[in-house]
Amino acid sequence: MNNLAHLIGLKDLSKQQIVQLLERAQHWAERPGEQADILHGRFVANLFFEASTRTRFSFEVAQKRLGAHVLNFIPETSSTVKGETVYDTIRTLEAMGVEAAVIRTKKEGLLQELAQSVDLKLVNAGDGTNEHPTQCLLDLLTMKQQFGMLEGLTVAIIGDLRHSRVLGSHLHAMPKLGMNLMLAGPPSMMPAQTPQGVKVVGMEEAVQTADVVMMLRVQLERHAETLYVSKEEYHKSYGLTLERAKMMKPGAVIMHPAPVNRGVEIHTDLVECETSLIQKQVTNGVAARMAVLETLLKGSERKWESSLETATY
Amino acid sequence: MNNLAHLIGLKDLSKQQIVQLLERAQHWAERPGEQADILHGRFVANLFFEASTRTRFSFEVAQKRLGAHVLNFIPETSSTVKGETVYDTIRTLEAMGVEAAVIRTKKEGLLQELAQSVDLKLVNAGDGTNEHPTQCLLDLLTMKQQFGMLEGLTVAIIGDLRHSRVLGSHLHAMPKLGMNLMLAGPPSMMPAQTPQGVKVVGMEEAVQTADVVMMLRVQLERHAETLYVSKEEYHKSYGLTLERAKMMKPGAVIMHPAPVNRGVEIHTDLVECETSLIQKQVTNGVAARMAVLETLLKGSERKWESSLETATY
Amino acid sequence: MNNLAHLIGLKDLSKQQIVQLLERAQHWAERPGEQADILHGRFVANLFFEASTRTRFSFEVAQKRLGAHVLNFIPETSSTVKGETVYDTIRTLEAMGVEAAVIRTKKEGLLQELAQSVDLKLVNAGDGTNEHPTQCLLDLLTMKQQFGMLEGLTVAIIGDLRHSRVLGSHLHAMPKLGMNLMLAGPPSMMPAQTPQGVKVVGMEEAVQTADVVMMLRVQLERHAETLYVSKEEYHKSYGLTLERAKMMKPGAVIMHPAPVNRGVEIHTDLVECETSLIQKQVTNGVAARMAVLETLLKGSERKWESSLETATY
Repeated sequence: MNNLAHLIGLKDLSKQQIVQLLERAQHWAERPGEQADILHGRFVANLFFEASTRTRFSFEVAQKRLGAHVLNFIPETSSTVKGETVYDTIRTLEAMGVEAAVIRTKKEGLLQELAQSVDLKLVNAGDGTNEHPTQCLLDLLTMKQQFGMLEGLTVAIIGDLRHSRVLGSHLHAMPKLGMNLMLAGPPSMMPAQTPQGVKVVGMEEAVQTADVVMMLRVQLERHAETLYVSKEEYHKSYGLTLERAKMMKPGAVIMHPAPVNRGVEIHTDLVECETSLIQKQVTNGVAARMAVLETLLKGSERKWESSLETATY
Repeated sequence: MNNLAHLIGLKDLSKQQIVQLLERAQHWAERPGEQADILHGRFVANLFFEASTRTRFSFEVAQKRLGAHVLNFIPETSSTVKGETVYDTIRTLEAMGVEAAVIRTKKEGLLQELAQSVDLKLVNAGDGTNEHPTQCLLDLLTMKQQFGMLEGLTVAIIGDLRHSRVLGSHLHAMPKLGMNLMLAGPPSMMPAQTPQGVKVVGMEEAVQTADVVMMLRVQLERHAETLYVSKEEYHKSYGLTLERAKMMKPGAVIMHPAPVNRGVEIHTDLVECETSLIQKQVTNGVAARMAVLETLLKGSERKWESSLETATY
Repeated sequence: MNNLAHLIGLKDLSKQQIVQLLERAQHWAERPGEQADILHGRFVANLFFEASTRTRFSFEVAQKRLGAHVLNFIPETSSTVKGETVYDTIRTLEAMGVEAAVIRTKKEGLLQELAQSVDLKLVNAGDGTNEHPTQCLLDLLTMKQQFGMLEGLTVAIIGDLRHSRVLGSHLHAMPKLGMNLMLAGPPSMMPAQTPQGVKVVGMEEAVQTADVVMMLRVQLERHAETLYVSKEEYHKSYGLTLERAKMMKPGAVIMHPAPVNRGVEIHTDLVECETSLIQKQVTNGVAARMAVLETLLKGSERKWESSLETATY
């Protein structure tokens, strides 16, 4: 575990590495509100090139509960405006003593590329439609808490799958953990290719047979005009309606990576209903991110302490 | 006092609650620069849907002097862009462990509505033209320090009264504290209804008889074209000119919630003159906000500690 | 040194004051990552009216390593929108207990003007094309580390000199320290006047004779259309090409205040080459800024403690 250099995606992690992260996340989940000082005096930067309050706040709470100093990058006021590359920004942060950067970006593959050439720890907070690994980890943690084990669980992920980086991460993680994955949604929103072992099913089968019904946000911004005449129509055809929720198996639960479009992919009354774990997902997000940052930074020697010896003073 | 669930407005507070908050604010006012750790490791969020550096900084200083972790919401980069409701944002913060949210919004009544359904402590930092309770508290604290007592004081609030949330709060607080309130200003800027016991007077009477001459900022952005030909004309007719300042009673003081429009509602030389308490109001703003946050959070059990028992691990 | 009221520019500092700041910066440079608590519980504000992530982060790291509370001003969401003057903003911060303000602004001379009338410590983080004193200090620190002494060093500053506040500071500092300064670049980008003792030379002479080849960023935003047909042409004529780098003296080094335009004023392969000190400049930026803030704030009495006695409670 200590050799985890970055968290770019679940694709790169072994089953054992995922399980260890989940165990550590559970450790923090059992200590809500505890102020740790594991990262006291150490610097972490949040570079959100795409706007996101929810995810940025979750990371910021995790960082501050670990005792770290937090730098927040605000796209509008940044020198990337001046044409500086992200690589140069990262190298600048490194030189300032920042030890980890949490990055959200539209550019898929950017983090994988950066990982080759920087020493600072990179954490992917969503890269295009590729992966969103900490979201995946918090989902898995939430399922683990609910069902006691992950192996053998059946998860239906429903909705706008084509643009979903959450799906991107789960596609890598679930097979490694012996979980069953079903997809449902409008044909126009299906992923271009369906990986082996993943079933594409109709809405009714998905809702009736899954242990976890995970609804994805419809990117209305992108689809509004092209795919559906109205939110109401989407809701009726592919949303989790009150009727569909009643068809769910006993013990099955509702999840959603949020923010939700109430009345579109999910009926507003279901967002905080008894079988919904949406709030718990948010809570677990902090724990999962604490686990990731702790794992990446705790074991690491501070680069500058060794580099100091070779410096010319 | 310990049963103060939120601070939405002075409307909801009893005289005793106001007095207790002022006493606690005085406690902090007597300890300038002191670093307290009453809220060590606890999270507070500032959600300013309307821009305000001054008020946000004042809250942030108060929060950090109390030892809290601070999350700042930046409207431009937020997921409310994605259509998430403020309610969902607040619930998300709750789930992350945030215990109080300071909110500024254009929507009157939003906080009152939210207060029904969230557990996190809400602090109104200005809601439309309704109330701005911490501004009112800092004004009262400043008057108390100056005059030793509030009962019987005569305060003239002058200027753009129709859009003033500061007036909104004072209209509730002053009668409870036995204070006398006079209003003056252009007829077009008068409140739609004048509450019983409040006198509308001319500029000269207001300035000559009040113990406190409180000038309000003219929202030039709103009125520029419609109401006045020029700033100069406004100043001459309804501003605190040097001439009018000379007519003030011995011992009377000038106040202003700031930011000031120098040369419009107040002559530039009066902003920091001897009888002006404007700077002291700013200083007291930190103390008043410390008192509010401390009162709301100090006695409270952390919600998550009890909710943990019922969680499914 | 304790009588340093502000850091507006190198123009105002004596040789001894510069040397003392550099010694203190070296102290911090030798303690990378160390968390100090010299400014524990004290407030510093960063007011960047011009966007800059790099410089703001450097100051923020310095402030947090010293233990200070940091307030970040975000131009877009500020009450300066409402027309408040910078003077009033500073006075407001003072009244809240903020003890230092780091300011970047387009208005030359603004800080000098403010310094007459505010008590809070001002740090210039770049004012128009006038000065950028902390950049100058970190440059000097880096040269001192590299060469052991500053006196007698020959520095060539090359490129867009007309708009350079970095040059503005070096023009004041280098003569005081007995350093030799050469300028090179397009005639259209030369400063209006060349101070006595400063030589204007051709690119080849600059590169071949300097101990330090300091390339400046070309403000492409400003010049793109008017001065050069293309980036390639600029690079060929006035950039540090691979060929020119080979002509540098043995032991000579490359510097750049960053962010760099790769392939314009400097060949991309040179940015992190062995003779480049660009990364070390960034690292030293934190140390230099810690030295400045420490020097300004450490010896100072807190204003409010004495003012308390005269307050009316």
